[in-house]
Parts: sequence; C-alpha cells; structure tokens
Amino acid sequence: MAGGEEVVLLDSYASMFGMRVKVALGEKGIQYVHKEEDLKNKSPLLLEMNPVHKKIPVLIHNGKPVCESLIIVQYIDEVWKDKSPLLPSHPYNRAQARFWADFVDKKIYDCGRRIWATKGEEQEAAKKELIDCLKLLEGELGDKPFFGGESFGFVDVALIPFYTWFYTYEKHGNFSIEAHCPKLVEWAKRCMQKDSVSTSLADPHKIHEFVIQLKKRLGID
Amino acid sequence: MAGGEEVVLLDSYASMFGMRVKVALGEKGIQYVHKEEDLKNKSPLLLEMNPVHKKIPVLIHNGKPVCESLIIVQYIDEVWKDKSPLLPSHPYNRAQARFWADFVDKKIYDCGRRIWATKGEEQEAAKKELIDCLKLLEGELGDKPFFGGESFGFVDVALIPFYTWFYTYEKHGNFSIEAHCPKLVEWAKRCMQKDSVSTSLADPHKIHEFVIQLKKRLGID
Repeated sequence: MAGGEEVVLLDSYASMFGMRVKVALGEKGIQYVHKEEDLKNKSPLLLEMNPVHKKIPVLIHNGKPVCESLIIVQYIDEVWKDKSPLLPSHPYNRAQARFWADFVDKKIYDCGRRIWATKGEEQEAAKKELIDCLKLLEGELGDKPFFGGESFGFVDVALIPFYTWFYTYEKHGNFSIEAHCPKLVEWAKRCMQKDSVSTSLADPHKIHEFVIQLKKRLGID
Repeated sequence: MAGGEEVVLLDSYASMFGMRVKVALGEKGIQYVHKEEDLKNKSPLLLEMNPVHKKIPVLIHNGKPVCESLIIVQYIDEVWKDKSPLLPSHPYNRAQARFWADFVDKKIYDCGRRIWATKGEEQEAAKKELIDCLKLLEGELGDKPFFGGESFGFVDVALIPFYTWFYTYEKHGNFSIEAHCPKLVEWAKRCMQKDSVSTSLADPHKIHEFVIQLKKRLGID
C-alpha cells in the first residue's frame, strides 16, 4: 500500500459509526482493506483488536488497533494531517467541534433507536426528542454550508451517516424530518455531493430492510 | 489575572467531572475563579453558558464557554500547552489515552451510581462490573507509575476524581476496592501526593454524606 501504510477497517454495513471512519478515510484519500464483520458471530480478529468493547468499527493501522469512531476519526486527522483537515486549528473551535460531535453521540443514536424499537407514547417522545436535537444542530449549522464552515469537517463526519438512517426513522415514526428541519436536509444533500460521503454511506432502503430483519431477530413487533 | 486571561469554572462540590477540570487547571498552574452552582436552582449564568446540557462543569475562558469535562481538559491542554502536557504527543498514544478516558466515562460513573442507588442483585451486578472495569484499568496501568507513563496525564486526570467516591461505593456495597485492585489504589495514593490532585478532590466522607442526603431527596431508601 502507498507509503508502506497498512490500513484495515473492521466494519459492519449498517453502522453509522463505521460509516464515519469510511468518510474520514475517503476525505484523506487513504486506501484501506475493508473487512465486513458478522456481528452475530464476531471474528477472532475483532475480539483480539477490541477486547474491551468487542465492537466495530476498529481501524488497524500497521497492525495496531484504534477503537471508538470519534477517536478513530481524530486519529486519522492527526496522522494524515496534510490533507483535508477535519478539526479546526484553533483550540476553542476544536472544543466546539468536539462538543457537537459528542452531542450527536449522546443523543441521536439513542433517539433513533427508540423510534424504530418502540411504539405509542415512547415512540412519540423519541420523535419529539430527535426533532429537538436536530433543530439544535440546525441552529449550530446556521447559514454555513458545513458544520466545519466553508469546508466539510469533524461534526459533518460525525453526523452525516445518520442521514442514511433518516428513512428508517421516518417510515417507523410516520413523520418527515425534512418538514421539521429543511436546512439540515439541505446540508445532508450537500454532503452527499462529496465522493467521500456518497461512496461511504449505505443505501437507506437497505438500512430499512436491515432494521426489519433485526427487529424480527430481537423479537420486537 | 496573569496574562490578561479570565478563567471561571462553574462547578459543584461533589462532581467528579468538575474535579477533573480543577486537577487539569492545577497541573497547568492556572488561576481561576471558582463558582459553586446549586444544582437544585441553577444560575442564569450556567443556563446561558451551557444551554444544551445545562450541566456543570463549564469553563468560561475570556467570556467563552467550554462544556463537557473531557473536552474541557483537552481544551486546557491545547491552550496552555507549554506546561505539564496531559495528552501524549504521538497520535497513536493520544488515541489510546482518549480510549481509556472514554472508557472511564462510559463505565465507571454508571456502575458507581448503581452501587449506591440500588440493592440486592442489581447492586451485586454493579459491584462486579465496577471491579471488572477497574481491573481492566489496572491492567492498562501495568507497572507504570501513572497512566501517562512516568508523568501524570489525561487518563490520570479522567479517573482520579472517582477515587474520592470509592468510600461511598464501598460503604454502600459493603466491599473493599483495594482488596480487588491493590495496584490501582496504590496509583491513586501516588496521585494524591500531587498538589494539583489533593487540593482538587473532595473529602470522601463529605461525598458519602452528600449521597445520603441525595438519596433522601430522590426518595431512594
């Protein structure tokens, strides 16, 4: 591989966390070997490389593992720092970017899951919370083309993979995210014009089908 | 204030997250104004400075807020980079430090809370999980004096405030952390020899009293 770098990604198709790493590698133009994990039957390599959490994604760089998606994205940004910087250079702006990426981690995944995994009042509460969170993010975006400002950055990488799950949230929750957050959906479409994003994100219909199968397996009606 | 820097910390006495920030500021030798928040009656300043989570700690640096303790500690490390570096310089070591600090965030607080807030089987499970997590951390520490190696670093800052809560966990759970993790307690005592730590951590007996009062307020028997 170019420059003698060996980069391997342990991943799973529908994971928004794995997609973050693919987007970041795409932004940096890094070639890598993609290994799809069967999460019902995890590989010895995954268990060896992430013995603590036993989760994907794992980035293996020259034989050494890095785990947890936002930590991996920061690692990629620090190692391949000469191309497409993701975090801003000023400490205050870096802290703000980390804050919003952390906000995505703490809120969006959980709200989304409750939308497809529950019904009735619990589902309604999750829908409301998701919209509230996305509106906060829309406010942070403001009139900028990207969360990173003029260029695509760390918060963009953190959030954009969830766009591919919006269809699943909308079908299960019978609502339109675009109706509530039109500017955020515009932002997502802008991101999708980037090759690093469009080639990394899963097909929304396949995600929906994946969730239907997952619910059957989990015994969720 | 020296160098024209105005540093204010919004904090609450018993918070391990606030203690992290105090330790980091102490390591860097930064003077700051400490403002104790009444979490039952949050100040307009706190609500203004952290409108998203409405939580302490918040570091206000020259009027601009930074929220979330590990993000604050990284910010402090990046702004005052000439003294006592907390994160290692190599990207791989930085990623590992971030991984273990994140592990502390994801596991230790929650296990600890379940020890004092539950009883019976739930409490036993939390005790076992806490010990398992602390043993993992002890393994990561190995024979080094600090998680940061020869010097006190990011993971040390992230974990040491929990030491002041150990007494509360032990009294509620009727067990000894030292009996299970003697090397980790040795590490904690080593950290306590540093002024930055000993002057930042709360009194374990006061934490215990705080939790007794908190349980009464929450209606937990």
